[in-house]
This record gives sequence, C-alpha cells and structure tokens, in this order.
Amino acid sequence: MRATLMYGAGDVRVETVPDARLIEPTDALVRITRACICGSDLWPYRKMPATDSGRRMGHEFIGVVDAVGRDVRTVRRGDLVVAPFVWSDGTCVFCREGLQTSCLHGGGWGSPDVDGGQGEAVRVPQADGTLVVLPVGRDDVLMPSLLTLSDVMGTGHHAALAARVEPGKTVAVVGDGAVGLCGVIAARRLGAEQIIMLGRHADRITLAREFGATDIVRERGDEAIERVRELTGDLGAHSVLECVGYEESVRTALSITRAGGAVGRVGVPQDPSIPLAKESFFDNITIGGGPAPVRAYIEELLPDVLEGRIQPGRVFDRVTNLEGVPDGYRAMNDRKSIKVMVEP
Amino acid sequence: MRATLMYGAGDVRVETVPDARLIEPTDALVRITRACICGSDLWPYRKMPATDSGRRMGHEFIGVVDAVGRDVRTVRRGDLVVAPFVWSDGTCVFCREGLQTSCLHGGGWGSPDVDGGQGEAVRVPQADGTLVVLPVGRDDVLMPSLLTLSDVMGTGHHAALAARVEPGKTVAVVGDGAVGLCGVIAARRLGAEQIIMLGRHADRITLAREFGATDIVRERGDEAIERVRELTGDLGAHSVLECVGYEESVRTALSITRAGGAVGRVGVPQDPSIPLAKESFFDNITIGGGPAPVRAYIEELLPDVLEGRIQPGRVFDRVTNLEGVPDGYRAMNDRKSIKVMVEP
Repeated sequence: MRATLMYGAGDVRVETVPDARLIEPTDALVRITRACICGSDLWPYRKMPATDSGRRMGHEFIGVVDAVGRDVRTVRRGDLVVAPFVWSDGTCVFCREGLQTSCLHGGGWGSPDVDGGQGEAVRVPQADGTLVVLPVGRDDVLMPSLLTLSDVMGTGHHAALAARVEPGKTVAVVGDGAVGLCGVIAARRLGAEQIIMLGRHADRITLAREFGATDIVRERGDEAIERVRELTGDLGAHSVLECVGYEESVRTALSITRAGGAVGRVGVPQDPSIPLAKESFFDNITIGGGPAPVRAYIEELLPDVLEGRIQPGRVFDRVTNLEGVPDGYRAMNDRKSIKVMVEP
Repeated sequence: MRATLMYGAGDVRVETVPDARLIEPTDALVRITRACICGSDLWPYRKMPATDSGRRMGHEFIGVVDAVGRDVRTVRRGDLVVAPFVWSDGTCVFCREGLQTSCLHGGGWGSPDVDGGQGEAVRVPQADGTLVVLPVGRDDVLMPSLLTLSDVMGTGHHAALAARVEPGKTVAVVGDGAVGLCGVIAARRLGAEQIIMLGRHADRITLAREFGATDIVRERGDEAIERVRELTGDLGAHSVLECVGYEESVRTALSITRAGGAVGRVGVPQDPSIPLAKESFFDNITIGGGPAPVRAYIEELLPDVLEGRIQPGRVFDRVTNLEGVPDGYRAMNDRKSIKVMVEP
C-alpha cells in the first residue's frame, strides 16, 4: 500500500510500504477515507534530523473497518470510524478517568507495525477502546468537521477546558492555526463573552471572526500584551489558550492572563522550561493542559457537529490525494494553507 | 516603639522606630499581641544585600485595635483582630472574587508607613477589608492556632485547593516547614486518603504524622521520586503541595505527580522558570497556586480552629519576646525551630 514517510526536515515522501494487517486479536484494520496534516507534523518537518529509514506520518483519520480481530466487540467490518490521535484500551485507570492520552496500554500512530494516518490503511490496536463509529455515510458533507474530532477540535476544546472557560468569561487565544481557530469555536461553545484572537493572517482572522472571535490583536510581543490589556480593562483575560508551543508564545500567554486566571496549553512545548515562574506565581495563574484526550471528547462534541452547531471542518482550506501530501506539508509550512485534508 | 528591621542577610535588629499612627480615615491602629517569623522571612535572611536603612519585618499578627479612622465600620477600639499577610480593600473586583492578594488597592506590610508585624504596633490600611475580629480573649489558649490563620494555615489550605485535593485522593507534600505541615492538615481536612510527607527532620515528621500524614519519605531527589512511585502503585500522587520554592523542589513535585494531577505551589519561587515543561505537558499536569488569599480563608477555617478540629498552632515550637526575634530567625534558619511565635 502507499503511505507517507518523513526522512528529515522538509523531506516528505509517499512510498509503497507493506500492507497494514491485523496482528493482535484486539486490532481492527481500517481503510482510510479521510486524513489530514497536523500543525504538530510541522515540528519534525522543520527540525527532524535526516534518517535512512523514515518515519511513518499521520495521526488523524476517518476510515472504513475492513477486518477486526476475534476479540473486538464494538466495531465491525463496514463501520465508518473516527480515530483519536493516540490509541488506547478504554479500560485502564486513566482511560476510565477520561485521560486516554495516558493509557497504560496505549500508544501513537506512525510505527511500521501500527502505520500512520497519511496512508491507505492502518492497523488500529485496541480497536474497542480507540475507535468511535460515525452514524453517517463515508462521503457525508460533514466529513471535514467530523475529521477534526480526531485532533484539532478536541484539542481546542481541551485548551478551553484547561483554561477554565465559562459563560461570561474573557478568553484570549494565542495561535491562529487550526487548533487556535478550534479554540475559538470551543470558547464560544462554552459561553465565553469576549474572545480575543492573537493573529495576523487575513484568512485566519476572517475565519476566527466567523467562529466567534470578538476582537483581533495583530500586534506581537509586548505590543500584543499591551493591546490585550487595553481590551480587558487592564486586567487581562480570564482564560488564555496557548496553541503554539514556543517559549515566547507561552510568555505572551502568561502575560495576558488576568490574576487568578488560567492558561490552557495545547501547543507542544519546544523548550524545556516554562517562563515567568515568579510572575505567574504572584498572580495566582494556573497553567494546565497537555495532549488532549480527544477520545473522551468525541462523544461530547459529535452531536454539535452532526447538528451543525459547530463547523470546525472549515479550517480545511485545501484537499489533496495521497500523492499530493508532500505539497500539502509545504503549503502548511509556508502558511499558504491553514490545514490540508487528504483523500487517499 | 520597638520594631524588627533587617539590614541584610543574617542581620536582624530590634530598634526604636517612630510610633505607628493613623494616617488615612480607613486605617486602624493595632497593638500587636502575637506575631511570628515566617519561612518566607528566611529568604531575605539568606540573600538580602546589606542596606543602611533596613527593612521593617513581619506580616503575620494578632492584636488589639487601639484606634480607628473615621471611615472604619467593621472593627472598633478594643476588638481582638487577626490580619492576613497582605492588606486589601475588600471591595475591588479581585477581593470580591476572593483573590485579595491581587487587590487593586492593597499592599504588603513592612514599609515605614505601614509598619511590620514583628513590632509593638501596626498601622493597618483598609482596615474594613483587611481585619477579621476574633471572638475570644487576647490570651486564649487557641492563640497559636488563630495566629496561623494569618498565613501558614491559609497557605497550606491554598496549596491543597490549588492541587485539587478531594476526598479519597492521594496527596504528597514537598517541604516539611510550617506551611508543609499545615498542608498536611489541609489535605486531611479536605478528605485525602493517603498523605505522603517528604521530609527528614524527626520533630517535623512526628508532627506530620500527628496531623495526618500516612507515609513519610526521607529520601531526596531521584530516590524520593522512586519512593513516592512505590507508594502510589507507580502512578504518582493526584495532588502535590509544593511548599518550598526552589527549582529543585518544583522538579520533585512535578516528578511525583500522577498524569492528570495537579501541583499547588505556595513556596515563593526562587528561580525564573518552571522546569519540566515537556514532561508536565505530556502528563497533563496542572500547575496552580501562588500567594494564598488567606483573607478569604479565615472565615472558612476559623470555626475549625475555634472548635478544635484542627490545631495548626502546634507548628510553633518556640516563643520569644520582641528582643529575642533575632535569635528566633537564627533558630529557624538553622532548623532548630519549625516556627517562632513572638509575644511583644
């Protein structure tokens, strides 16, 4: 089958690899119908050292179940399913608490045994714990929004929960990528009154406004901090969604948080420490977040997608087939695309 | 009047200073009956550069109201009152939210105009917002425990809340000083099932056990982390109270926190950044806390002290008069005393 591999920074190739197959009795074999490229895929695209073997890519997908192992109970051949960006058993102590990203028997996509989402098919370990059956046809018009439940919409929701967004609160979103934009949707969905998006790209700002952003801050660094303070009566935002991951963006996030407020960080940290330890302490700012347990959120968010109350699929502004994936990476890295959907 | 001043590291003197007096109509003049030395006073005791003018010391006290300004409504001459470690107006947006440490019109003790608690008397700004009247006599046997409501008991409570202690949870406490010991009391009071104290001083360990600690970890560094993991089924503690403030103790705290758990930090940070940004992210650990809004907690904790359900006053293991304050600093710094009470 064909699948995407990354061999180093800027070096993405689509190649023929061994067919995905069942190994364990708890596996499902899923033929991909939709996948996508993630902002987090751009970290290795910028920094990965060159390798000979390559790394299998893709951790967001929807597909049709082609076969299941003998112990699989909740999905069957022919089901259309969405997968979270990590697989999990659904039964361990963390899964039961809704923190499937810390599953004691879970793992990530992208090894040769497990395959990656940017390919023709995937072996899904722990299929019962991992997959959620979708009650629609494989080419339903809602497919882009349903696909975001695999990662970015759940991640934006996680940022909003970690930042303790509540009705009437003032929210700021640092990062205007797909996750930040989904964070705007999540903040609005949770009842935020004022939603300030920090961003400067016209297409993203337009979308942010349509998703519910009430204010746009185009400045950066100290000027951005100053501007947010002006917009919030000099107090800062109750809830700040950090959707980038650089130390500098965390610094901005902490600097625009109101005393007693919270930062929800979902941008994968690129630095070993969190800045402003003293300032955030004296302001009693809470720092939460991490990889989103999107498996826990799919059931919560799915009705809103199915009934059209949220349309996170609008973050996709480009569609490609599998052979076009390398171009998709380039477009996202050059900020010519917010997020690329893949139809193998 | 006599008051305590610090002139630099290790240099504490009791001197004659101008008498405390009313300045604003919202002031009260309080004659100190009990004060104490705080673990946070030891930071300047170790690091403060030498000065000619000296810094007025002390931010925890109980006293009798000697006079009030014409706008003061809730306290009157003769009342016995306890003061939080910062003063606050009680009416600003943060005070109304219970975050009096961020009061827009508040401040700290220890300027020449405001005086410090380790002295004969104090001018209390914003008396209505700051002071709480105590329904006991000035030499009541409960005085030591009531005095802890000024800081350490409220701070231990804040750490426990920030670490999200709840009934049935596993708690670890980093730091066996007075705040850590009060953290044990707070954790037990909030229903924690297992309370692990990290400490190595016999007197403190004894007290921790009496306060409710179920396990003691005497190891340090990696060995302490290993030991806590053993005690928690290799998962870590749901709630970790960081009551020290060094980067190393924050590192320990984060390393013994269970995935999805929380660290409540109340030790004043001595370093500019928080370590383990990536590890804490991938484990979805929440980092909260800061200076405790003890003003908000006095009313909550006071009944438990008055009815004897908690006895935080047991952290005092030495009493001195005002002239003995320099010796008290030395004893606490040498760890010969957990906490020193001052009876001017």
